[in-house]
Amino acid sequence: MNPSPSRPRIAVDAMGGDFGPHVVVPGAVQAARREQYDLLLVGDEPRIAAELSKLDTRGIVVRIVHATQVADMHDKPSEALRKKKDSSIQVCCNLVRGEQADGLISAGNTGVVLACSLFTLGRLEGVDRPALVTILPTERSPCVLVDAGANVDCKAINLMQFGIMADVMSRVLLGCQEPRVALLSNGEEEGKGNQLVKEAFDLFKHCSLNFVGNIEGRDIFTGEVDVVVCDGFVGNVAIKQAEGLASSLGRLLKGELRRGFFAKIGTTLALSALKRFSRLMDYAEYGGAPLLGLNGTVIVSHGASNQKAIANAVDMAGKLVRKDTAHLLKEGLAANKDFALYTKRTAQAG
Amino acid sequence: MNPSPSRPRIAVDAMGGDFGPHVVVPGAVQAARREQYDLLLVGDEPRIAAELSKLDTRGIVVRIVHATQVADMHDKPSEALRKKKDSSIQVCCNLVRGEQADGLISAGNTGVVLACSLFTLGRLEGVDRPALVTILPTERSPCVLVDAGANVDCKAINLMQFGIMADVMSRVLLGCQEPRVALLSNGEEEGKGNQLVKEAFDLFKHCSLNFVGNIEGRDIFTGEVDVVVCDGFVGNVAIKQAEGLASSLGRLLKGELRRGFFAKIGTTLALSALKRFSRLMDYAEYGGAPLLGLNGTVIVSHGASNQKAIANAVDMAGKLVRKDTAHLLKEGLAANKDFALYTKRTAQAG
Repeated sequence: MNPSPSRPRIAVDAMGGDFGPHVVVPGAVQAARREQYDLLLVGDEPRIAAELSKLDTRGIVVRIVHATQVADMHDKPSEALRKKKDSSIQVCCNLVRGEQADGLISAGNTGVVLACSLFTLGRLEGVDRPALVTILPTERSPCVLVDAGANVDCKAINLMQFGIMADVMSRVLLGCQEPRVALLSNGEEEGKGNQLVKEAFDLFKHCSLNFVGNIEGRDIFTGEVDVVVCDGFVGNVAIKQAEGLASSLGRLLKGELRRGFFAKIGTTLALSALKRFSRLMDYAEYGGAPLLGLNGTVIVSHGASNQKAIANAVDMAGKLVRKDTAHLLKEGLAANKDFALYTKRTAQAG
Repeated sequence: MNPSPSRPRIAVDAMGGDFGPHVVVPGAVQAARREQYDLLLVGDEPRIAAELSKLDTRGIVVRIVHATQVADMHDKPSEALRKKKDSSIQVCCNLVRGEQADGLISAGNTGVVLACSLFTLGRLEGVDRPALVTILPTERSPCVLVDAGANVDCKAINLMQFGIMADVMSRVLLGCQEPRVALLSNGEEEGKGNQLVKEAFDLFKHCSLNFVGNIEGRDIFTGEVDVVVCDGFVGNVAIKQAEGLASSLGRLLKGELRRGFFAKIGTTLALSALKRFSRLMDYAEYGGAPLLGLNGTVIVSHGASNQKAIANAVDMAGKLVRKDTAHLLKEGLAANKDFALYTKRTAQAG
């Protein structure tokens, strides 16, 4: 355990993402200088050192940890686990497991990050499957959506655990006092939903969360709830659709810019309003999605992450460590432990 | 069979929707006058007659068919089937079944419309489950999405049949020559998706459709495909999310209108661009969603339908009848019949 959690040590997969050390190293250093984190930059030492030499690293502790391999976008998670035991992703996981780092971020192959971290760090007690949490903009405060894509086929108990963990994220990352937790469904009434959602509804009704029932797709962006729970298939489709629709509307508005003087001024303003909204949908704004449910803080960043996105991802990892999120997660899971065990027994008996 | 399909006879559930005959009757008459349809207005005769008396019905054939009951939004489909055998929805279905009408539209309780039409009209050969098709705007031509919410839990063969039917809709309603058909998934590559999508991918690869693979949520609105296939849970969440996001963005842009003169003019123009786009997302534009796979043309309209929406729904029914969609659907299903049987046998053997 880090003796000084006020100065979190973040392992950064310097080889991850579309741009590698050239973008990851300055992004990590930017966050470390701003928020006082110690960095472990993991990957090809000469390349990382070359990038570091261009930067001002006064006042921060930076260590390079050499890794001889890189897991790329074409690697299958199972093969990467077997054949790339010295990949930068794997070494990051080892550092967290060995308590040399308090958290890690990677913009590498998401499947490989999921597999390595699950295999190396193991799951928190009370978690059957880790899940990805993402932050979405709404007309009021941002909300969190879980699972953003880690588990495409889920059971009701998985959704329940996702909800418990996302509730903690809403408190820690967004400062929400008593998050309103909802299931994403095809109708608001109890009894609406596919088989999975109907079963999950019964679990949520009886747990310790502030469960407010089902919401429909149209209610995600009004800001009426703080935590949206769904399986990773639905969550992934929903997030990407929202990104896509915002981009399409932006392009259509830009088309208006050709329409003359008044239009130009006003449309520019309208576009800036659209941007304010869709910026929050932009991965760069938060930098990454926490992978929850592991013995360790893991942030998965977008492959296309720019320097700002990497800085924000490192910052998210640091924030989660500083706020002792691991402890809060364990508390949340423990509060529903008997309940979860009860449902498990019932399911086995049934 | 109607001896003159050039003059389709449309049964209209005059009691359906939030506003009943007051909106449905003028909407239906508007469409009938415009496009030369014969109308059978089904429901409470005095109320329908009172609405009709306010309208100019010269040149069209309108008949009132009395129904003593109304299925409201609180009726469970199974109960409505049993206890409301003379509901306006049920009578519409009876008229189509008895070949006194060529198609029907209802803005009533969707679950009841689905149940009554399935029970009364039966399924087309080669269809295990009827599905709702909806039209979505894109940056280029509109696309169709199936299933919009009729089936929350599906098997791969259901998705396959949905695709075959939606392909026909794309041709008939949108004039698409060779629709590009895609599965909605969490990644483009083959092998991405939940269990359902992975199994469906294998079926689509071998069928007669122009299958272009998986698309992600972000690709729905760029217009790269003409037919998007998913289960009714995912489809419903996706459609409602798109509606909700467009509304949220509209409200945010309207907030800009307070910012001064130039902004006012330009933002108004930008809003009109947004409106042009989201109009297509508006149920009023197409009026309803065809329920495909039945022995008969059935259009399900939004409960909040206004007069324009009803007129467009009647028009959609008329168009489907005129273009002999039933025949085209049968052809499409027949072309994949051996294949469907083959997969069924394989599934049973496996």
